[in-house]
Amino acid sequence: MEVKGFLIVLSGPSGAGKNTLINRVIPRIPNLKYSVSATTRAPRTGEVDGVDYFFVSDEEFDQMIADNEFLEWAEFVGSRYGTPRSFVEKQIELGHTVIMDVDIQGALQIRKLMPDAVLVFLLPPTLDELRNRLNKRGQDATDAIIKRLEHSAKELEYIVDYDYYIINDDLDKAAERLVTIINAERCRVARTDLNAIQQLWQRRQN
Amino acid sequence: MEVKGFLIVLSGPSGAGKNTLINRVIPRIPNLKYSVSATTRAPRTGEVDGVDYFFVSDEEFDQMIADNEFLEWAEFVGSRYGTPRSFVEKQIELGHTVIMDVDIQGALQIRKLMPDAVLVFLLPPTLDELRNRLNKRGQDATDAIIKRLEHSAKELEYIVDYDYYIINDDLDKAAERLVTIINAERCRVARTDLNAIQQLWQRRQN
Repeated sequence: MEVKGFLIVLSGPSGAGKNTLINRVIPRIPNLKYSVSATTRAPRTGEVDGVDYFFVSDEEFDQMIADNEFLEWAEFVGSRYGTPRSFVEKQIELGHTVIMDVDIQGALQIRKLMPDAVLVFLLPPTLDELRNRLNKRGQDATDAIIKRLEHSAKELEYIVDYDYYIINDDLDKAAERLVTIINAERCRVARTDLNAIQQLWQRRQN
Repeated sequence: MEVKGFLIVLSGPSGAGKNTLINRVIPRIPNLKYSVSATTRAPRTGEVDGVDYFFVSDEEFDQMIADNEFLEWAEFVGSRYGTPRSFVEKQIELGHTVIMDVDIQGALQIRKLMPDAVLVFLLPPTLDELRNRLNKRGQDATDAIIKRLEHSAKELEYIVDYDYYIINDDLDKAAERLVTIINAERCRVARTDLNAIQQLWQRRQN
């Protein structure tokens, strides 16, 4: 049975744990490909160019916008982030599931361009927990964290535009839920080649 | 987080294995309730009134139709089958998931009355396999089986009106898929009380 490829967008407040969750889930699902974003922000410790992000200069980012190379892009706390379109489109054509993490505005842009994309909202358990995580990560100044938290509380109202939500209060359970959502979406009639089903039945009928 | 109740309709050709699959899945999911149908057909060996079906007379069935007690009903191979409305509505109000098996026309009737219902099409692996199963069950005359098979092949085209499909070529795998679909549907934003999410966040924010 041919399953059509599709895009799964994991989104939610910064610090919700999107990356950690994706890294947990990718090894558990065959043909699940990670869409690497481009960004103008500096690499954090341990981040690898081309694996975690494509780290590009402001000029390169401008050129990618001009070339219409982004499925979505956004500025966030002074840096720009974008999803290169060609990789996503190619993988979907091959029948693969593509997973990406993106902020909430980006997810809503993608929804407009790809109405078939599956949008998952990842919630940190509470705002207090989110504050702890951002403090622990230690990469942002206090005023940047306060900005992020205010932003997150406001962004919660966009959850109504999403298909699914996951509360990230337990990483194992959250991973289990994301795996469940992806596997269920693969059972959707709309994602399946109906000719293949009918041919299968007709062939055997004779 | 309050999850709203919903109805999951397992449907597909007679002999696809709907009952067996439901019996596998119910013990694995909390708050999953089976909707018992009413029927005018005679009980098969081992079937219990009020558990497998409510076995009613033609007159009782007529009265239930007159009283608008059915969510759907249909005649199939000389017998009538119907879904009592009150049980389903009460369980959904309680936040439970209700599962039922019904033929394809019944599923389409339910879709009209309850657009929020989740429709799952259960396919036997092939028409040949379906013929073997119906012969093995031994409860139908040969001409009834031929009628059912012709009916099934035609009904396949209604799969496009369904949300999900499951091929019942392996009972364990099919059960796993149905569990996955139900669990994923419980993560849907549309099935969740958004006030509960927002209250949770606001309470902790202070």
